[in-house]
This record gives sequence, C-alpha cells and structure tokens, in this order.
Amino acid sequence: MDELNGWRRTHYSIDLTPNCDGAEVIVFGWVASIREQGGITFLILQDREGILQITIRKDEVSPSIIKKVKGLREHSIVAVKGRVRSIEKAPHGAEVIPKEIKILALAQKNPPFKLFSKTQPSLDKRLDLRAVDLRRPVNRAIFKIRHHTLAAIREFFLKEGYWEVNTSKIIATATEGGAALFPILYYDKEGFLAQSPQLYKEQLTMAFEKVFEIGPVFRAEPSRTLRHLAEITSVDMEEAYVNYEDVMMTLSKLTQYVIQALQTRCENELKLLNVKLETPKLPLKRYTYSEILEILNKEGEYVKWGEDLPTPALKILGEKLPEFYFITNWPTSSKPFYIKPCDDNPEICEAFDFMYGSIEIASGGTRVNSKRLLIKKLKEQGLKPQLFEYHLKLFDYGMPPHAGFGLGLERLMMVLTKRENIREVTIFPRDRLRLTP
Amino acid sequence: MDELNGWRRTHYSIDLTPNCDGAEVIVFGWVASIREQGGITFLILQDREGILQITIRKDEVSPSIIKKVKGLREHSIVAVKGRVRSIEKAPHGAEVIPKEIKILALAQKNPPFKLFSKTQPSLDKRLDLRAVDLRRPVNRAIFKIRHHTLAAIREFFLKEGYWEVNTSKIIATATEGGAALFPILYYDKEGFLAQSPQLYKEQLTMAFEKVFEIGPVFRAEPSRTLRHLAEITSVDMEEAYVNYEDVMMTLSKLTQYVIQALQTRCENELKLLNVKLETPKLPLKRYTYSEILEILNKEGEYVKWGEDLPTPALKILGEKLPEFYFITNWPTSSKPFYIKPCDDNPEICEAFDFMYGSIEIASGGTRVNSKRLLIKKLKEQGLKPQLFEYHLKLFDYGMPPHAGFGLGLERLMMVLTKRENIREVTIFPRDRLRLTP
Repeated sequence: MDELNGWRRTHYSIDLTPNCDGAEVIVFGWVASIREQGGITFLILQDREGILQITIRKDEVSPSIIKKVKGLREHSIVAVKGRVRSIEKAPHGAEVIPKEIKILALAQKNPPFKLFSKTQPSLDKRLDLRAVDLRRPVNRAIFKIRHHTLAAIREFFLKEGYWEVNTSKIIATATEGGAALFPILYYDKEGFLAQSPQLYKEQLTMAFEKVFEIGPVFRAEPSRTLRHLAEITSVDMEEAYVNYEDVMMTLSKLTQYVIQALQTRCENELKLLNVKLETPKLPLKRYTYSEILEILNKEGEYVKWGEDLPTPALKILGEKLPEFYFITNWPTSSKPFYIKPCDDNPEICEAFDFMYGSIEIASGGTRVNSKRLLIKKLKEQGLKPQLFEYHLKLFDYGMPPHAGFGLGLERLMMVLTKRENIREVTIFPRDRLRLTP
Repeated sequence: MDELNGWRRTHYSIDLTPNCDGAEVIVFGWVASIREQGGITFLILQDREGILQITIRKDEVSPSIIKKVKGLREHSIVAVKGRVRSIEKAPHGAEVIPKEIKILALAQKNPPFKLFSKTQPSLDKRLDLRAVDLRRPVNRAIFKIRHHTLAAIREFFLKEGYWEVNTSKIIATATEGGAALFPILYYDKEGFLAQSPQLYKEQLTMAFEKVFEIGPVFRAEPSRTLRHLAEITSVDMEEAYVNYEDVMMTLSKLTQYVIQALQTRCENELKLLNVKLETPKLPLKRYTYSEILEILNKEGEYVKWGEDLPTPALKILGEKLPEFYFITNWPTSSKPFYIKPCDDNPEICEAFDFMYGSIEIASGGTRVNSKRLLIKKLKEQGLKPQLFEYHLKLFDYGMPPHAGFGLGLERLMMVLTKRENIREVTIFPRDRLRLTP
C-alpha cells in the first residue's frame, strides 16, 4: 500500500468538465470498475459526488501504472495525479490521463452487493456492511439530501429567530405517559432515555421564548415496522405567545423552505432517486379528525371516534391524500396530557398531526399552561403528578402560553426521497432486532 | 389570567428605540421590577433580548391598567399593547405607554435568586429551578452565544463541504477502551450509550469522505469536577485523504471563524459577560508533548514521560499559555488504539490536543487505516479484537487514510464565555449527583 504523503484532492469527479482540459489534478476514490477495451484500460473511480474515468493507454502512461492497476479489486482506494483531457464519451465529458497512481488501500473481498445493480440485495445484508453499502449512488443521494434538509431546517429556524438548544437525553423519571422507555443504569440509580425533549423545551420558552432542538430520541418500540425505529432524529420547536395555528403555519413555511432548498441544491440527487419535489402551496390543506373519519367511513373503513388511526386507515389516506396536510382537533383523550383542550369543546383539543399521505411526519399543539389543569389532565391519563413535580413547580414562576411541534426527521426523509422503509434513510438503524453495527 | 387570543409580538425590547417613536406595538415579557415614583409606575419587563420600560401615568392610562399591575409579582408574564414614546432616560431611549395590558401568567412565588443580583446564589439552588434561572441576563447571554457558536460551526462545515451525519447513540459493545460507559437495557439485551461517534465517523469516510456530527455523548465520569459532565455535546469531524496536520489547520480555521462570527453577532452579550474575544492569528502555537514536559519541569512540576497531564500541570499551563494552542505527538501508549503512530518513531503518535490555557477543548489525530496494525494496537491496549469485528471487517473493503477530531462544545463555551464551571454553559447538566431536572 502506498502512503498518502503530500497528495491532496484538487477536484471531485463532478468538477472534471471539458473546461478543465489540460489541468493538472489530484483525485481520489474507490474503484467502481476496471475494464479493458482495445488495449486501453478504463479505470472508473467513484467519489462521494459521482464517477470519473481514468484512461490508461500504453502509449500515454508508464508501464508501472499499467502493472499497478492490473487485477485491482472493486472498492480499493486509489489516488491519481494526472492531467484532464476533454473527451465526449467520458463521464462529465472529461477523463484523467494518469501520471502517477497510488493504491492507498487494497480491498480484500467483494461485498455481497454491486455498486450499480438495479436489484436490491436484502436490507439486512446491506446493513451488516452499511459503510460499504453507503457507497451505492442511491445511498449517497439519500444522505446528501438528508444533509441539505438539516441545513435548510436550521437556516429557517435561524432566520426566524429560534435559538438552538440541547437538552439532556438522560432523564430521571418516565415522564411522557404511554411510550416505552429504555432504562439505563445511571451510576447507582435508574434513569431513562428521553423519548422527546417535550417538557424541557416547554420550560425553555420561559426564558428563551423561541427554541428548537435537533437530536436523538429513543423509544422501545415493541413492533418492528417499516416506519418505526428505536432511535430517531427529532426536530423539535417550542414557542411562547403563540398557539397551534401559528405553529402549523411555521411548520408549513419550514416545509416549503426545505423543499425549495432541495430543488436547488440537490437537483442531481433527486433526479437519480427519480423524485420530483413540488413546492407545496400555502396554506396546506387541513382536515379535522372528525372529517378524516368521514373520509374513511366513505371508503368502508370504520374508526370509532376517539381512537388513533389504525394502519388500514392510514393506507386509505395514503391513496386519497397524496400531499402534505394537517389533521387537527383530535379527541383530547387521544393526545398527551400537555395538549390544551379547545375552549368551546373540551372533548377535542388544539392538536395537529402533520401528514403526507399515510405518513405521520410531525405532531404538535397548543400546550396547557395552567398548573391546575395540567395536574387534572395528568390524573385523567393515569399519571402521577408527583413524578412531574420538577416541571409543575415552574408554573409558579410565570409559564407563558406556548405551543410547538416535534417532527421525525426520518419520516420527512421518507417522504422527500420516496423511501418505503425508514431504515433506508437512517445511517445505522436501530430496532428490536438490530443493535449493530 | 387573561387569554393570549390574537395578540402577537411586534417588537422585542431591543427593537424599541427612539426611531419607533409613535409606533403601535405589542410586547411580551416577564416582570423584572415594578416601582412607583412620583405617582408614576414603572413596570420593567424583560424578554430574551433585554429590558423594556412600560410607563404608567395616571393621566395617560385607564384606571383598570393601574389596578391590574398593582402588586404584580416578579416573573409574572405580561403582554402590553401600547405606543412607543422616545424618552432619553428609558432603556434604549424609548418607553411604552400602555393602552391595554394582559396578565398571561401570575407568578405565585419568588425564586431564591434575584434577576439582577451581582452575588451568585448556589449553583445547585439555581439548577433546581433552571428554567427560571435562565432568565438572568448572564444566562441569556451565555446561551445566545452558544446558539451562535453552533450556527457558526455548521456554517463553516457547510461551506467547507462536510456532510452532516447522525450516528446511533446506542451501541452493542463497550468499544472505546478506557472510558466508563452507561449500560442500558435494550429490549432483552445489554447495550451501552456511545461515549463518542469515533468508529462510526471513521466508517463514514469510506463513502462520504468528509463528515461532521454534533450530538450528545455519554461518559460515566467517576468524579464530579468543574470540567466534566456525564453528558456533553460533542462536535466531531472526520475526513479521508488527510492527516492530523490538515485537521489541526481545519480546527484552527474553525475556531477563527467562530470567534469572528461571535464578535459580530454577540457583541452585547460578550460585553455583558465582560469577555473580550480576540481573533486568534494562524497558525496557532504548537508544542510537542515533550516540549510541554520541559515547560512544566522548569516550573517544578515533574511529569513522567508517558503519563497524562495531571491537574497541577494543567494549572501551570493555564498560567503560562493563556491562548489557543496544540499539544502534539503524544506517547502512543497514552492515546487510543485508533491513533496512528509516527512512522519515524512509533513511541509517539500523530495525535494532538487542542487547548486554551488549562482547558482541553478537543483532541484528534491521524487514524490507523491498516487492519493488521489496528488489531495489534487493540491487543496492546488490552482490548479484544473480536468485540471490534463490526469495524475491522470494513477494512477488507477499502478503508481510506483518514483523520479527524472530537471537540467538547461545553469546553469551548467555557473558554468563549470565561466560565469556570462546565455546568454554567450547560442547560440541564448531568453528573454523578445530578439527574434532574
């Protein structure tokens, strides 16, 4: 194996265009393929941006180079110092004529999947060698889009005046009623992994007014489904002096902003994934929970008022509503204790789910900011107010009215990249059966 | 208590300047103080940006307003609809004459600390009511700076072409030798909380080349010190086709970029904290581990070659080197197994610590990218290669040469805001004795 020494990348694959004709470059990548044709060796390298062609002709390169690349296995890491030549047939219209080649790492095996194959090897096989699987162009496109999605989300929050915060993921008590938590051994005590920063972000509106947090949340999901993982990335926002109507508008604008950003910055990646993103028009469509039940009823799916929407119901919504929309005013009993009931009818509440088709991307609502009402709702949901004392006591010090949302980044990614399985948009997914890599 | 209804903020405190004279505004905040003077009531509100004065004169407001604010306790949440009047004596040179006031939340108690007090109540008292404590101007300044520090870090990485990634915080095996881990009950198995994304970020250079991650890391620190917490925010970077020299330059430029950003965007906050940030000149100073030992020796602090720098040694460095600097080329045995030994002298390695005075902010180095050498070093450090199979097997598929760093955001914040206790720069700190709020 050769040493890196002083070689540093001058160009990515996509930078090599006919305009670079004659330029001296240093490029790096993994071997995607080598083929010989009419005495010329075409060494195709991949880097994270795309592919590039290294053209090795006997009369143009030293014999040591020809010898070096002979029998080079796919995925080996290669560095090439050479000159660009504009040529129509090559990727991006340019090839590199090598002066010197370094083999920085020799691949010893072939992974059980091909880089360019249209058929998908089993997800489990790919996840076992995830770092290699990520070299496949589809995956590089997905995770570049994820990178730009995160960047756009933060740009939006930054310009709208939200402060970024990070709250603790290790909590003392199982506070969000209902969801399964992971217990941890915290020194000599029992702790839990937070399934959302809900109560913490509410507390932070007291001093910081408008906050957002993007970080991991943990739920011991009992089932293994296409849409759930034990660890996901949550995008949370909380804001004082607004209600759920304002929050829905903010979430709508955020979605619009992200999609516009991706259309500009990830054009090639979206094309590769065969995805056409349309900028949603505001305001987004909204349906009350009751209206949704009517829609479902017409399709022969009967959901009893008060219940969550079961999978068959979501499937129907996927067919009937292939767009971004809100479901508002849920039954109060179906939503968490911190959601404010409607003033004119406490049986329903100021909550919303943010959907695309059958996929729930986010949920949010106006929060309860009366201590008395919060204690009442805790008891109604079978939770012990004493466990929430660290939160309830703050209401004695002026808790502003506030509202917010929590969004599953992977759910949003499934919609933006049209993936059916949440694992496809998660680098190292975790579920009941998978704890590695 | 009044309802929010349709009132929405038009201005923050700092927006109210003489230029706004005559403007109709809606402002919100918590009561910082009320005082009567010569028949006029001065209601001082605070919001997250600063303070504003609501001036209540009998001849200018309705009697209901005067009655409403009588005896209003500090920290109560108030909304004011009124008109701005330019007046020299008021904060920012403007006051608000109220037309209507809403009390959105009544404070029931006084916290055991004052908003404007120069003396600090005990940290534990403040942390027990952290959400209220954060209203103190010093804290608002610290966490606004933290927000802008994070934004600047990401801007830098974005423009330098690093992709943001998120790797799993729940891991199968205790892989980073040495540090204490938190065990979790992961369904029916034992898992651990990751103390760094080290091996994962290395793996991601295979496909993504240049990555960064900002997220929580967890260490069961045995001692309770001013500089350690059980959960911190780590800023990690990893890059293919570079070595530690490149990484040190990147880290230097990042630091310079962040400081320049803060000087512009957080001028008021830095002033309030009495901190003068100087843009560091590049290249930053560097000392080898051996040179550091010489410096310490001259001061009468003898450290045996091969050992970590103990607290008294760091104290001396704090006095002698009050600036950003690197300590390079540590004894190989003192650094983790994945750090590459120097080619010309394997007793020392291509590692660095990034320091400010006595504070270790970050560490990094060139990584081992030979499987054989990695197995050898694992064994040397008493670790079982079998436990690292999920990582070692990837070397068969072309592991590029790579290097990177991990930076403790709170450590950087301690330096930037001149705080002595890491808890001051962490919203909800966690340590051996503290698991709440």
